[in-house]
Amino acid sequence: MMEEILENRRIDKIAKTFISSPHKVGKIHEADAEIVDWDKQSPNYLALTTDALIEEVSSGLYNDPYFIGWMLAMVNFSDLAAVGAEPLGMLLSIAYSPKENDEFLGKLANGISDACQRLGTFVLGGDTNLGEKLFLCGCAVGIVPKTSFITRKGAKPGDRLYITQRAGLGNVYAFLKLTGQEKNLPESFYQPIARLKEGKIISKFANCCMDTSDGVIHTVDTLMRQNHCQFVIHDDWERILHPIALEVCKTQNLLPWLVLTGVHGEFELCFTLSPQKEGAFVKEAAKIGWQPILIGEICDGKGVSIRTADEMVALDTAGIRNLSDQAGSDPLSYIKALMEWTSNSGVK
Amino acid sequence: MMEEILENRRIDKIAKTFISSPHKVGKIHEADAEIVDWDKQSPNYLALTTDALIEEVSSGLYNDPYFIGWMLAMVNFSDLAAVGAEPLGMLLSIAYSPKENDEFLGKLANGISDACQRLGTFVLGGDTNLGEKLFLCGCAVGIVPKTSFITRKGAKPGDRLYITQRAGLGNVYAFLKLTGQEKNLPESFYQPIARLKEGKIISKFANCCMDTSDGVIHTVDTLMRQNHCQFVIHDDWERILHPIALEVCKTQNLLPWLVLTGVHGEFELCFTLSPQKEGAFVKEAAKIGWQPILIGEICDGKGVSIRTADEMVALDTAGIRNLSDQAGSDPLSYIKALMEWTSNSGVK
Repeated sequence: MMEEILENRRIDKIAKTFISSPHKVGKIHEADAEIVDWDKQSPNYLALTTDALIEEVSSGLYNDPYFIGWMLAMVNFSDLAAVGAEPLGMLLSIAYSPKENDEFLGKLANGISDACQRLGTFVLGGDTNLGEKLFLCGCAVGIVPKTSFITRKGAKPGDRLYITQRAGLGNVYAFLKLTGQEKNLPESFYQPIARLKEGKIISKFANCCMDTSDGVIHTVDTLMRQNHCQFVIHDDWERILHPIALEVCKTQNLLPWLVLTGVHGEFELCFTLSPQKEGAFVKEAAKIGWQPILIGEICDGKGVSIRTADEMVALDTAGIRNLSDQAGSDPLSYIKALMEWTSNSGVK
Repeated sequence: MMEEILENRRIDKIAKTFISSPHKVGKIHEADAEIVDWDKQSPNYLALTTDALIEEVSSGLYNDPYFIGWMLAMVNFSDLAAVGAEPLGMLLSIAYSPKENDEFLGKLANGISDACQRLGTFVLGGDTNLGEKLFLCGCAVGIVPKTSFITRKGAKPGDRLYITQRAGLGNVYAFLKLTGQEKNLPESFYQPIARLKEGKIISKFANCCMDTSDGVIHTVDTLMRQNHCQFVIHDDWERILHPIALEVCKTQNLLPWLVLTGVHGEFELCFTLSPQKEGAFVKEAAKIGWQPILIGEICDGKGVSIRTADEMVALDTAGIRNLSDQAGSDPLSYIKALMEWTSNSGVK
């Protein structure tokens, strides 16, 4: 079922060649970070992940060096958060043109440094190269108790579907930036923070978890494919979407849930929970001042649907996920395709 | 003393912003891989490293996809070898253009897979992106006993200077490839193998170690700067240089030791040993069929020198290291500068 998605075919094409490690816990696509059982005696697994910023930089979506640095750290630590890991730190691989000035590099480094400090973690080392273009890759390393790590697998019919915070900021940011409405951007409204603290609580209570780095619909679609159940999102957008996202949709005359559909996410965590654990979970979350947002439920069947007051609307989520591959690197035609898809879905 | 080198200044410019991790053993520039004390109870440190292939690919030095894949794995595992670590595996970050065909990707993946199998290790996971250009980054993870890890620091006057195998193949490969003499390349004569087995033995006996990924002179220069002693290389080129390197120098009318001077190394390990440990070390090496090559000695003083039959010739190794930065990305002017530097050094 995973191979319906073009991105997964791309990954599988490369990965099929590799012999699987006996240390590795779980299979490809099953978790946001690789879980490695490096020592049978240890109470912990290693959690490892790597993420590069490529299209975000080349498309101009990220162009402020401080923000690029911040995101490089956050995208990597967010994958550790999604498995419930405690970070040890990250490695950096940075290539830049000799033309790049010191001010640019200084701001980039400040962004990385501030992001690590915000999360109480560190840059452990790395590699620099001179190249024709700016290239940034990170690799985050953490540890996670063998008794409480979490993956994308484990959702059951009857589970509740939650997200760490109200959604939609990532796609709103991308929409405004790529349509040249930068001046309308409230400063720093989109500056994600990897949900490490929340991830640790989630790993103790939830059945599965994944970050929304590729947007909410994409995340829910992946969880659905891993778990072979039906994921139903409620249409209570006022409660589910971030106030800024709602406001932008209103002023731009867009359907509000468009902000869940694009591939530029907000790095929240999406997870499912058995109803029996909901009470204890919410209590534990409140201890760190966190109010998780209920966004739906898991049912028998398959696919991703939206439940409106009148009906249950099935979404062609493979279709929407493949739009980004099909649009190539033209963001405006991608945005147009998303709008069409959303309008044709039958959900308002 | 490290800041005489332009590359180090580049690294320091970025790294000075970061708060050092309390888990990290040693300082920046002190080892080929980051050593992380992630658990006080564990008998092992984690060893982590990241390396990208940028200029090697953009300059055309590496263009065969199988070879690119092979090198991506080997450059990363070589850094683990240099600290004496046992690899757990590696993560990949690969960006490629949608135009890249399946055959290219298949060969790239085969190269990575074969390299990992050759070393008895694995690809643990990774990240793929679509981008305008091919971009490849690896991150290798290993463990190393707290009692026997090795770094670039620890050389003492009186030590002997060794290399795992005869040197010069990396620069010979680059010379032939970049001067358009590809047809003269003996097939696969340059296909480095990370010296993991050797690294484990080295870590039990040697005082310091570093891989020759940037060529022998650059490696010895870095060890000299870390250890504040004089590194003396013998001029017995017939014993020190690989037979193919000697042959190419002869037919091209080049000074033989030119093949130690460029920045494209052969991924051997360079290390120093107290004379008292030499006997036991050579015996242990012989058990795995390995004959390490003695290439020089460590003395009081500072700098890198070559000892000929008549005299000790001091080399301006900061000068030579900075040539590659100054030549920018024009390989031919870099090769010309290396030839001039070598001829002017007074060593034949």
